Amino acid sequence: MTAVDPSLLSNPRSDGVRQVAALGRRAARDRQGRFLVEGPQAVRELLRYAAPAAAALYVTDAALARHTDIGRAARDAGLEPRRCTEQVLAAMADAEHPQGVLAVARRVDVPLGEALDAVGTDGFAVVLAQVRDPGNAGTVLRGADAFGASAVLVSDASVDVYNPKVVRSTAGSLFHLPVTVGVPVEELLAACRSRGVRLLAADGSGRTMLPHADFGRPHAWVMGNEAWGLEESVRALCDDVVAIPIQRAESLNLAMAATVCLHASASARA
Amino acid sequence: MTAVDPSLLSNPRSDGVRQVAALGRRAARDRQGRFLVEGPQAVRELLRYAAPAAAALYVTDAALARHTDIGRAARDAGLEPRRCTEQVLAAMADAEHPQGVLAVARRVDVPLGEALDAVGTDGFAVVLAQVRDPGNAGTVLRGADAFGASAVLVSDASVDVYNPKVVRSTAGSLFHLPVTVGVPVEELLAACRSRGVRLLAADGSGRTMLPHADFGRPHAWVMGNEAWGLEESVRALCDDVVAIPIQRAESLNLAMAATVCLHASASARA
Repeated sequence: MTAVDPSLLSNPRSDGVRQVAALGRRAARDRQGRFLVEGPQAVRELLRYAAPAAAALYVTDAALARHTDIGRAARDAGLEPRRCTEQVLAAMADAEHPQGVLAVARRVDVPLGEALDAVGTDGFAVVLAQVRDPGNAGTVLRGADAFGASAVLVSDASVDVYNPKVVRSTAGSLFHLPVTVGVPVEELLAACRSRGVRLLAADGSGRTMLPHADFGRPHAWVMGNEAWGLEESVRALCDDVVAIPIQRAESLNLAMAATVCLHASASARA
Repeated sequence: MTAVDPSLLSNPRSDGVRQVAALGRRAARDRQGRFLVEGPQAVRELLRYAAPAAAALYVTDAALARHTDIGRAARDAGLEPRRCTEQVLAAMADAEHPQGVLAVARRVDVPLGEALDAVGTDGFAVVLAQVRDPGNAGTVLRGADAFGASAVLVSDASVDVYNPKVVRSTAGSLFHLPVTVGVPVEELLAACRSRGVRLLAADGSGRTMLPHADFGRPHAWVMGNEAWGLEESVRALCDDVVAIPIQRAESLNLAMAATVCLHASASARA
């Protein structure tokens, strides 16, 4: 007979495990106001930059032994790591390889006004108008972080930033800078305008080429949809429509275009 | 009793279908010297830029009716589209949604000398030293194409460019510029050097910041591994090690870094 270890979660079909696993779906995330943070690197960033949002931490014994800093950071944040079996962790996770570490976090988005305060009079931001692909959205967040953007404003027509695939592809950037979600794009753009934020639509149809763009301060890049770009009605709300000079049409995807635009903003500031 | 249509491939378990499906695996690609090109956009680019490499085209009736240009382009290239059922197409494909169009192509890579001839005395290239992720490799190829690189040199330690995921993420760029594969990275770098191609390692450890880098002509960007960057022995073979100025460490992935570097090369040329 095997001794039962009461501190080890071992039943992948328990209600608690199901409740965590449900966070892979948007309806459950919206209902619980929580989301999944998977893998040691993302959990590390959560505990480092947004510890008050961490609601629970699940780890296998092997992962806890390997990443002693994570257990320590969790306890510093008043969170006792919950030991679980590989099977329980796999049942909770959306990722194929969560590497034995998974956290549940409360939402980290901020109100629009707070995000715009962060942009202030000298910063720059990025607006996701209608970005649907999780990998692209995550990469844009990561680029915003890398190049020192002050905020990311995500419209209600874009992918849920708490989608586990988005969270994974931000590689922790979701916890590094203010992110606003769920606002219609027209409202986002009107709010930017009212604060004097210059709106630059990034779109292959633009007649202003990136090297000639007037960034001004503050400014925001407005990124459209992967397949059809920015809707005419959204472009019309922007101060300028800017294209990246390329050799061949349709050869940049949205994440690459955003990377180049955000790098240009960082370079213009430097 | 259903009438049998002899021109319609309808058995997903036939030998012919299995032989195509096997191209999802590297061993079969190496043995057959062929690879999968999936979806209407990629097949269009194949027929437009590398028609002699197209060995077979499989389409559903619905896709053929929707993309009449593909049927026409295939026949212009002397290739009769082979009609097949949705089930047969799904059995052949690696993609989840091949959209009813799939081609089998012969390899399109060129000898190293030919790629270096394309770089000549005024071009620039990118070297994939140890890029393992298919999406990253595909995105780098796409960026090389977008920003007018003359060639892509892929070492034998990198992912197979004929992996269906790489082919998909190049979005046709694989057919737009000369690509060399299967050469050890030391040989690639030695060959570049012998032609006077300046070697710039892209690595976060670099002490030269991108805005201060001396591109020179011709030059090549050397991209390392997603997780650990470039090995010291490879960096030592380069003329300079260049870092992208960022606000936070580890916040750019390999594809983003390559995009920024290639954009800088294009801008320096312009």
